[in-house]
Amino acid sequence: MRDDPPLATKALVFDVFGTLVDWRGGVARAVERHVSPIVPALDPGAFADAWRGQYQPAMAAVRDGRRPWTNLDVLHAENLMHVLSEYGVRDIPEDTRTALVRAWHELDAWPDVASALSRLRSRYLLAPLSNGHIALSISLARRNGFPWDAVLGAELARDYKPSVAVYEGGVAALGLEPREVLMVACHSDDLAAAAACGLGTVHIARPNEKGPGLGETKPSIAVDHAARDLADLADMLLEDTRHAPGTR
Amino acid sequence: MRDDPPLATKALVFDVFGTLVDWRGGVARAVERHVSPIVPALDPGAFADAWRGQYQPAMAAVRDGRRPWTNLDVLHAENLMHVLSEYGVRDIPEDTRTALVRAWHELDAWPDVASALSRLRSRYLLAPLSNGHIALSISLARRNGFPWDAVLGAELARDYKPSVAVYEGGVAALGLEPREVLMVACHSDDLAAAAACGLGTVHIARPNEKGPGLGETKPSIAVDHAARDLADLADMLLEDTRHAPGTR
Repeated sequence: MRDDPPLATKALVFDVFGTLVDWRGGVARAVERHVSPIVPALDPGAFADAWRGQYQPAMAAVRDGRRPWTNLDVLHAENLMHVLSEYGVRDIPEDTRTALVRAWHELDAWPDVASALSRLRSRYLLAPLSNGHIALSISLARRNGFPWDAVLGAELARDYKPSVAVYEGGVAALGLEPREVLMVACHSDDLAAAAACGLGTVHIARPNEKGPGLGETKPSIAVDHAARDLADLADMLLEDTRHAPGTR
Repeated sequence: MRDDPPLATKALVFDVFGTLVDWRGGVARAVERHVSPIVPALDPGAFADAWRGQYQPAMAAVRDGRRPWTNLDVLHAENLMHVLSEYGVRDIPEDTRTALVRAWHELDAWPDVASALSRLRSRYLLAPLSNGHIALSISLARRNGFPWDAVLGAELARDYKPSVAVYEGGVAALGLEPREVLMVACHSDDLAAAAACGLGTVHIARPNEKGPGLGETKPSIAVDHAARDLADLADMLLEDTRHAPGTR
């Protein structure tokens, strides 16, 4: 879908929340455990959505330069207090707040991810290009076996996607041209920003990311590849080595 | 050797050039291949030493703020021209210069390193805290099987060791306290700087780092651990789990 001649892809960089890990399911489970006892008739998924709903506005302050670099643990903790307040909760023990913020470090990958990354690693450099900071990215990688070559993204750029600095900083850190890098995400807006920086784009369908039936099943923009999941992507990219066009 | 009560070590961060990889041997081999044909009676090891000798002055300009962040590929390329000039070489094909700079990406690890890192990874977060930039660290990791959780060091801090920003930036990125992190290096000056930032210290003997018999066999400062090599370090740190004091 791009007209310029392709350069060989050397690296894949990944959105993490939604694309690789099920943030809503994991956060809802932590909310169920820690918040349900103090909020009667709580819908943990709705609480998770409300918490995630504060995500973009909080990052906007950093992107706009109104606030110095602040990592997601801090933003998640602040946003949690807002959401608890909306739910009428004023007092919550500090260790409960800490456990809830920690839940973002303990999210599970979608079932297709780990083995597909392992396959893709045989041919490409792999790195997260996430709004998660380095410590958070390490936690998720250790838990789920993500075989990263490096951790790129927001903390390296000290800015948040979709700021150009995050995409450009990630590509520069790899020592590559933008067209040698594919951005992999389940969010069309992330891919649009990456494409504007010259990266190739891969959309991954995550139809249930934001709850049942509430995720992107396909991209809303033109992309280089659209895959059902990461296994499908690995099939697509790695079959090139088999030199068997038309066999799919 | 420190008086404050110990915190449990959660991460090990590593110097790379000398501590993990044999820069002199690898660079000398590339020099033998690419420079010997144009410089009669060349001593490749001496050429490698002269090239490495330009390393600290070149980084000093960045550390002092006289120069913006500039990565080692650029500094190595500039320094190469100085050294070639000292050797009376004025003309050298660009692809030869590129191959020589690339030699720093293709260094081999000392034989004890890969398996020891694999053992240490079961218990600790592991990351390079090197003056090498991210792309260079990735190259060395891929070549030698270093199982990094993230790539920390100069590029993240946009400064060079022994600047405080590199040690503090690495610890902060891990989300840890300095005393939860051990700096592992074969250079006492690197360890002294890390200790000044509060990190624990491990000295690795690399008696032949700068040529036969020209490396540190032991630290010149007080350190928390001194090991013969990385296998020895892994034995020391991992035996704690066996709860068998006095069996060594």
